Amino acid sequence: MSIVMINGGSRENGNTNLLSARAVHGLEVDIIQLDEYNISPIVDERHAEGGFSEVADDFMQVMDRVMEYDKIIFATPIYWYTMTGTMKQFIDRWSQAMREDRYHDLRERMARKKGYVIAVGGDSPYIKGLPLLQQFKYIFDFVHLPFEGYVLGQANKPGEIEQDKKALYSADLLNQTLKEDT
Amino acid sequence: MSIVMINGGSRENGNTNLLSARAVHGLEVDIIQLDEYNISPIVDERHAEGGFSEVADDFMQVMDRVMEYDKIIFATPIYWYTMTGTMKQFIDRWSQAMREDRYHDLRERMARKKGYVIAVGGDSPYIKGLPLLQQFKYIFDFVHLPFEGYVLGQANKPGEIEQDKKALYSADLLNQTLKEDT
Amino acid sequence: MSIVMINGGSRENGNTNLLSARAVHGLEVDIIQLDEYNISPIVDERHAEGGFSEVADDFMQVMDRVMEYDKIIFATPIYWYTMTGTMKQFIDRWSQAMREDRYHDLRERMARKKGYVIAVGGDSPYIKGLPLLQQFKYIFDFVHLPFEGYVLGQANKPGEIEQDKKALYSADLLNQTLKEDT
Amino acid sequence: MSIVMINGGSRENGNTNLLSARAVHGLEVDIIQLDEYNISPIVDERHAEGGFSEVADDFMQVMDRVMEYDKIIFATPIYWYTMTGTMKQFIDRWSQAMREDRYHDLRERMARKKGYVIAVGGDSPYIKGLPLLQQFKYIFDFVHLPFEGYVLGQANKPGEIEQDKKALYSADLLNQTLKEDT
Repeated sequence: MSIVMINGGSRENGNTNLLSARAVHGLEVDIIQLDEYNISPIVDERHAEGGFSEVADDFMQVMDRVMEYDKIIFATPIYWYTMTGTMKQFIDRWSQAMREDRYHDLRERMARKKGYVIAVGGDSPYIKGLPLLQQFKYIFDFVHLPFEGYVLGQANKPGEIEQDKKALYSADLLNQTLKEDT
Repeated sequence: MSIVMINGGSRENGNTNLLSARAVHGLEVDIIQLDEYNISPIVDERHAEGGFSEVADDFMQVMDRVMEYDKIIFATPIYWYTMTGTMKQFIDRWSQAMREDRYHDLRERMARKKGYVIAVGGDSPYIKGLPLLQQFKYIFDFVHLPFEGYVLGQANKPGEIEQDKKALYSADLLNQTLKEDT
Repeated sequence: MSIVMINGGSRENGNTNLLSARAVHGLEVDIIQLDEYNISPIVDERHAEGGFSEVADDFMQVMDRVMEYDKIIFATPIYWYTMTGTMKQFIDRWSQAMREDRYHDLRERMARKKGYVIAVGGDSPYIKGLPLLQQFKYIFDFVHLPFEGYVLGQANKPGEIEQDKKALYSADLLNQTLKEDT
Repeated sequence: MSIVMINGGSRENGNTNLLSARAVHGLEVDIIQLDEYNISPIVDERHAEGGFSEVADDFMQVMDRVMEYDKIIFATPIYWYTMTGTMKQFIDRWSQAMREDRYHDLRERMARKKGYVIAVGGDSPYIKGLPLLQQFKYIFDFVHLPFEGYVLGQANKPGEIEQDKKALYSADLLNQTLKEDT
């Protein structure tokens, strides 16, 4: 099965990247570094006459790319106890995607994929990161994407994730799962 | 006491705006419509040599304006079970603000203010919006801003918030609290 | 529609009782004060040969009584951030009830009822009581009981609930809903 | 450092017991199987004249025993998305203990201990068990007991916990931590 990883962080070689790299080590993965794309905030026109206006940015291109894969990994540093604003801007635009003709069957397609979350935070992520996981569950449920698992990690300074054995092991387990399911 | 409302929505006359307007009816309030400003995503340079680079956008101007007030109301539609990406981008940048000289005492100043949240969602916000409230609690705690209360509302179509009596009453109660505390 | 209220508290005229009384004012309600019954802790024999042993206590009698009604209100003080042990002991026994012949259709029957929660706590229930609400949602979902609404209240000393206007209003709203639905 | 484990389950050789045994393998631990004791539900007399009545059961004996140790592990099956009623009844009584003369310094004593949680559930514990963890955090915070970590596990049928590699590894890590800290 093919894999895409959507990375919401902004720090090269950040802890989230290190942990994510471990989770997909030895696998072919299309990594989308969201901050390299121009993705505008959603303008909510769900109830506007004529619906959503077309937006001249990279969103649809990124979304199309994501939808090509069987497994979607959302990798995000935990900023202020939830996903980064960059990742949130991307997800917000799904409201628009779901109203596009080419995504009339988004849920049917998502239902056949598998979703994963990798999230690394510095301030007690094993407790204060739990609402984020609950939100990802709601998000996945809404689009019918099965929530197949998550990896939490605790780290602040560069490289610190290497101290979090539980996170490393969870990433290794995810790696194994992804490999067995290929 | 002076009041600022930070609005994270994108829809003019959206339900969040209607409910928020009710909460501050008859009060002098500085309303900051975040999507009217150019606020870049944070680039995490907390651990970079030289620290954060200066960013040529409107963030500091907006942040300075927020900090002038005694009460801060965060008003956001609930998109995908949490605050809008636009509001998140703004809050993400606090990590940078906290490292600026002029905000060396941000927590001391926040501790003397009062924080409120108004959040309106379409998909079971009274249950699925609860993780968002928990996150705001963590956010406020981190900067020492007292969490004085919140108003949840359920609405989807334009104007629908008028059907949510509990939300309207909570907004009225908040209005009363804000007035008595002036 | 007929109404039963399951009260998990232990204090006569406690704040939970006051708020609950308000929610059902003027309605015919069967109030089950759980601590007046002898309900043993569950012994998990789901996987035992022969299944659950019969227990000589009041559980089945109480459960049968609950199931006669169309609306079920769970009213509990928040002790240590969740429902009282007394209410939890009662709900734990549902695992046994669901394996009884007479409850082979428990979910079908629950699906036609409506469930409500009233919970009053002394330590920041509007934030620290939220996990309890999420758990009730999971509990209701498991037995297919629609979660029709909740009332949170903040109170510590006897009678203090009268100061929580939001709770009182929510109880009044619930009262109105229950009446209109009769 | 000395260790006590409070077990809230009811099934001999249940999955929670198996996982807990692994976490304390090779360590001297005082295991308190709560269902072997007679612990009455709390009667809330915090505001009664004369305070709490003395209760002729095993609670104080169990509580005294718990307080002798440096590390407290709460091990509970997840019944209906939270701790068992049996464990909840025990914790509810803390409200009474905190008003006893001999526990006037309960918080100071707890602050010098370390607290852990082991919880095993059958219905999506990695998501639906998260509110339970948040509650334990609140409980620990209230008595000033540092929350040093938790182990979640997924299992239903007897012995099934052996399939949950993440749980086993987390238990092993906890075991190592406990040993290094002895």
